[in-house]
Amino acid sequence: MKIIIDAMGGDNAPEEIVKGALLARQDLGAELILVGREAEIQRVLQEQGYSTPPAGIEIVAASEVVDMEDDPATVIRQKKDSSMAVGLRMLREGAAAAMVSAGSTGALLSGATLITKRIRGIRRAALAPVMPSKSGRGALLIDCGANAECTPEYLLQFAYMGSFYARTVMGIENPRVGLLNIGAEETKGTPLQKEAYQLLKAAADQGRICFAGNAEARDVLLGGFDVVVADGYAGNILLKGIEGVGIYMIDELKGVFLKNLRTKIAAALVKKDMKAFKQKLDPSEIGGTMLLGISKPVIKAHGSSNAYAIRNAVRQALSCAQADVCGAIAANIGYMKVDGQQTE
Amino acid sequence: MKIIIDAMGGDNAPEEIVKGALLARQDLGAELILVGREAEIQRVLQEQGYSTPPAGIEIVAASEVVDMEDDPATVIRQKKDSSMAVGLRMLREGAAAAMVSAGSTGALLSGATLITKRIRGIRRAALAPVMPSKSGRGALLIDCGANAECTPEYLLQFAYMGSFYARTVMGIENPRVGLLNIGAEETKGTPLQKEAYQLLKAAADQGRICFAGNAEARDVLLGGFDVVVADGYAGNILLKGIEGVGIYMIDELKGVFLKNLRTKIAAALVKKDMKAFKQKLDPSEIGGTMLLGISKPVIKAHGSSNAYAIRNAVRQALSCAQADVCGAIAANIGYMKVDGQQTE
Repeated sequence: MKIIIDAMGGDNAPEEIVKGALLARQDLGAELILVGREAEIQRVLQEQGYSTPPAGIEIVAASEVVDMEDDPATVIRQKKDSSMAVGLRMLREGAAAAMVSAGSTGALLSGATLITKRIRGIRRAALAPVMPSKSGRGALLIDCGANAECTPEYLLQFAYMGSFYARTVMGIENPRVGLLNIGAEETKGTPLQKEAYQLLKAAADQGRICFAGNAEARDVLLGGFDVVVADGYAGNILLKGIEGVGIYMIDELKGVFLKNLRTKIAAALVKKDMKAFKQKLDPSEIGGTMLLGISKPVIKAHGSSNAYAIRNAVRQALSCAQADVCGAIAANIGYMKVDGQQTE
Repeated sequence: MKIIIDAMGGDNAPEEIVKGALLARQDLGAELILVGREAEIQRVLQEQGYSTPPAGIEIVAASEVVDMEDDPATVIRQKKDSSMAVGLRMLREGAAAAMVSAGSTGALLSGATLITKRIRGIRRAALAPVMPSKSGRGALLIDCGANAECTPEYLLQFAYMGSFYARTVMGIENPRVGLLNIGAEETKGTPLQKEAYQLLKAAADQGRICFAGNAEARDVLLGGFDVVVADGYAGNILLKGIEGVGIYMIDELKGVFLKNLRTKIAAALVKKDMKAFKQKLDPSEIGGTMLLGISKPVIKAHGSSNAYAIRNAVRQALSCAQADVCGAIAANIGYMKVDGQQTE
């Protein structure tokens, strides 16, 4: 199974991206197509001891690079020969089963929508990273910032898409869906949540999803939800808040351990165990997020991804392609429409 | 300076509330009026070794109790002799400088609005707890759930009220105000954030507040903001998210330390230092929340408050009354109106 990698996307491109591709090839036996500036990709391969691309690694040249300064809404049209645009076109044309990019989230979203296209009937693609959770299974938070403004119908579609992802990729048979809200009662929240609640309840009554009611923000990590549905504004606030507390607490913890000789000895004793702990809320460990709703699997890796994070994103891309999440969504699109809501 | 305490509010009432009053009296020299069921309050005092209320503690009888099951919107009208309603009436009539309650947030908010009343011109009262922050000064998050739906004008008023609180109670001369949003650019967010951004910018241009732009959720704990303005839906999501991660991480950390003999030795070495660390995100340490916008200081203590948390809430009530936050807001109400927006 082939995976396209945008070799020029992310803070550490192309070095860490190319190294990540080598790791994925070695660990996962993936076949990879690296898209980007050929000379730069070759240079990194050479630094890693390969005078020519090793078996399983292919390079496709693309002369331009999408920058963080570019307008996400228009850059894909302007930089037609960017690694991101070339990769998305190759994906559309079936050159590979999925694509990974650590580049600009906004550009990737609008590029994937424009080039690879949404699944027919899906109103908006959504970002859906898996948060760590006390259950150990993780909780998919959908949407996390692709759509600041949502309609109740979008949230219904997020619930379905999240459920299919949880079932096919995460292996959870009856994923429990929660609606991110500020209280448990169905009358809580803004009109958006109140209307979405009724749509989700109706879908559950028909036996199509397993809706478990409102999820308060603390329940995302602590409660028994597998999928938490949110508008992109609130989802992003929660995601970034979780990241912030993680960084804050690890920083404070460092202070505790550096206090004096006694605490430094303690630090030495738990060093190895602390590493795993720190990884729990580390974005490069949380992994990439699939752009759910796009017709083929596109994985957005974190902008700060190192080689290991890219390897993990490739693993996720393989899982999404093998599980055929997109096919499962497309096959059930008939249930995801709300009568009376305008199609664009 | 006298402070009214709702002796029957909270999960641990009246035991911890009465004990908290005794602590506040001893540590802070506060004079306290305990409102609630006299026999129950007397019983706790007796258990603490007082056959009659000690100097500085006064009991005012109220026969009813606001329960978590009561409808917050109507309970104050229905239970006129509840400790909460009686306390709020006494506050309105000037029997004390401020009031503390660990009872139902919704009931306290609607009760304070109905009985003690909002400051004239303030559209909505807001909940504004102080989050821990890397700077060590803390960041006031306003609103945290009082108002799920907001207008741009509400957010402008929250910015002013938060600034006055930060200046007078927290002692920050030019509090940096941020608007909770999903990116730094002024075009980010929903129409609510975009319009509020312009109002905040205009207020800053007039030199009335120090608006530092959009605050991403991670910046609340990590960035240099003293006041973060949010609608109650997003603010509540962030607040509960922060609480959730705190609980999750402390739980995971416990797992690390209990792993084996080596890690248990490490735990023993840092035990004392870890306590202070855990308190950083502990709701009973974060303290109470002033209902900003009400004409007199009303402090909502956390529902799970123990005696120490009640003592801290009394300390906060004293600070708010001494600093006359309400007076500062009322004196500047002229700047907080947005032309063309309807007064109710």
